[in-house]
Amino acid sequence: MTQAETPQSTDLAASEWLTDSNGHFALAIRHGGNRLFVEQSPYQTVEVFQTETFGKMLTIDSMVMCTEVDEAAYHEMIVHVPMQVHGDVRNVLVIGAGDGGTIRELMRYEQIERVTMVEIDDAVVRASKEFLPSISSAFGHPKLDLQIGDGIKFLQAAAAESYDLIVIDSSDPVGPSEGLFSEGFYRDVYRVLKTGGSLTVQSEGPMFNTSAFKDLNQCLKLVFGQDSVNCYLVFIPTYPTGMWSLTYCTKNGPHPVKALDEASTTAFTTSHPLRYYNIDVHRAAFCLPNHIKAMINE
Amino acid sequence: MTQAETPQSTDLAASEWLTDSNGHFALAIRHGGNRLFVEQSPYQTVEVFQTETFGKMLTIDSMVMCTEVDEAAYHEMIVHVPMQVHGDVRNVLVIGAGDGGTIRELMRYEQIERVTMVEIDDAVVRASKEFLPSISSAFGHPKLDLQIGDGIKFLQAAAAESYDLIVIDSSDPVGPSEGLFSEGFYRDVYRVLKTGGSLTVQSEGPMFNTSAFKDLNQCLKLVFGQDSVNCYLVFIPTYPTGMWSLTYCTKNGPHPVKALDEASTTAFTTSHPLRYYNIDVHRAAFCLPNHIKAMINE
Repeated sequence: MTQAETPQSTDLAASEWLTDSNGHFALAIRHGGNRLFVEQSPYQTVEVFQTETFGKMLTIDSMVMCTEVDEAAYHEMIVHVPMQVHGDVRNVLVIGAGDGGTIRELMRYEQIERVTMVEIDDAVVRASKEFLPSISSAFGHPKLDLQIGDGIKFLQAAAAESYDLIVIDSSDPVGPSEGLFSEGFYRDVYRVLKTGGSLTVQSEGPMFNTSAFKDLNQCLKLVFGQDSVNCYLVFIPTYPTGMWSLTYCTKNGPHPVKALDEASTTAFTTSHPLRYYNIDVHRAAFCLPNHIKAMINE
Repeated sequence: MTQAETPQSTDLAASEWLTDSNGHFALAIRHGGNRLFVEQSPYQTVEVFQTETFGKMLTIDSMVMCTEVDEAAYHEMIVHVPMQVHGDVRNVLVIGAGDGGTIRELMRYEQIERVTMVEIDDAVVRASKEFLPSISSAFGHPKLDLQIGDGIKFLQAAAAESYDLIVIDSSDPVGPSEGLFSEGFYRDVYRVLKTGGSLTVQSEGPMFNTSAFKDLNQCLKLVFGQDSVNCYLVFIPTYPTGMWSLTYCTKNGPHPVKALDEASTTAFTTSHPLRYYNIDVHRAAFCLPNHIKAMINE
């Protein structure tokens, strides 16, 4: 069939829609040509679009990083799950997370003394600061030490037992994020994490990047030990398949569900206007469907 | 931009991809032109495609009904949630569900004496029987009374207090399914349901068909009462946004979580090779993120 005979194809014309595809499955979000920002950085193409129903949307190499409407699911779940089970996080390291949503959620905690954030691509930070003010609102925070640089090298050079919490908030394992999916990298993460500390990792869509999801789970179990790695799921409508995984790991620290304290978590959620996270959702996220358990031999 | 300047648009050409869109958000699944079945029935266009990664896929008017790879999430959750909390279901009514997945799951229960299924479109049943044998495997079951006809009229004519469980397994609220989203219809459902009985309903994607989701929830609360309606969520990668809702309602029957019996549900799941449902997932599905609660004032 020629292009002229496929009327539906024009419905998703690249001039009107952002398409995030793995070649077999795609999601597409309509922006109607309303592109607010584009920059070809040394690492990737960074764009911001005004979408019709998801607010503004940040993309890297045509992969959706976040939208204003549903970003809270990801950022609240990658931060509040480890924070609610570890009562004394003071020193945090964040790798990636250039849009700023992760540090916004971290800064809700008075007890945190310092957040070091290492983002490789300044263009992501600039795009978010200019066009996504509700997500990038914590970039001026006095506790933040923002470093534009390579997270892999940063960890190699970092001292052992330095951080109570490490968050790996990377894009997908292509381009500059590829090294964030390797055993060597996680050996460094483990070394740099304090005993009793926690790690949360963006661990891909099980039904979209199945190999990356399985490989990363296996790698984390190798480094942290079988019983110290817990996968959890989040509904993210603007990520392909809508089913996204995060993974909680700990270096002899608290269990991500058993260590929850009902009273203190309820006090926290009552005093913060969260859009996704609540104590029931925290527990529920770790209840995996059988087919996801099977992928990671659980 | 003209068509010639938008190379990405050809990636999702209608000859190669099925696109399920609401005009703002779309998912697309690649079939590479491999269409096994097409029929323009009196009601709708029914098609079956061989996809590259989701097995065979049934669509109605370009909306995904099910794929072989992920249909279990929907069918197991619409059936086992009500079945596991109502210990004595004998007489079941199913409206829609033409692919057969719902009756396949129902037939796992020895205690069930009769399943009456009313599907308006024979073409769906024929397509599924011929091309989706793993889904349509229960059509020959001796307990099944399959009626090709209008579910709305069937319910209007049915006697009060007839069924222990009613399952409304409809397509989206356009075309022949539109009347399945009205108060009058659910007044009939309520009348026909036995006291102590349960209802589960396909209640749309909160982030895709937001109005339909909200309106149906309000309608069900009006008919069944505020405290007898419980929305729950399922990950369905091949439905747009991946976040789909089902709703459990009861006519003075069991609560969908509190009434769960750990021992009997575990015995059930141990003896059946389910792909999605387990007792933890059952409970977790009712834990709604804050933004979904807000949509339905919970």
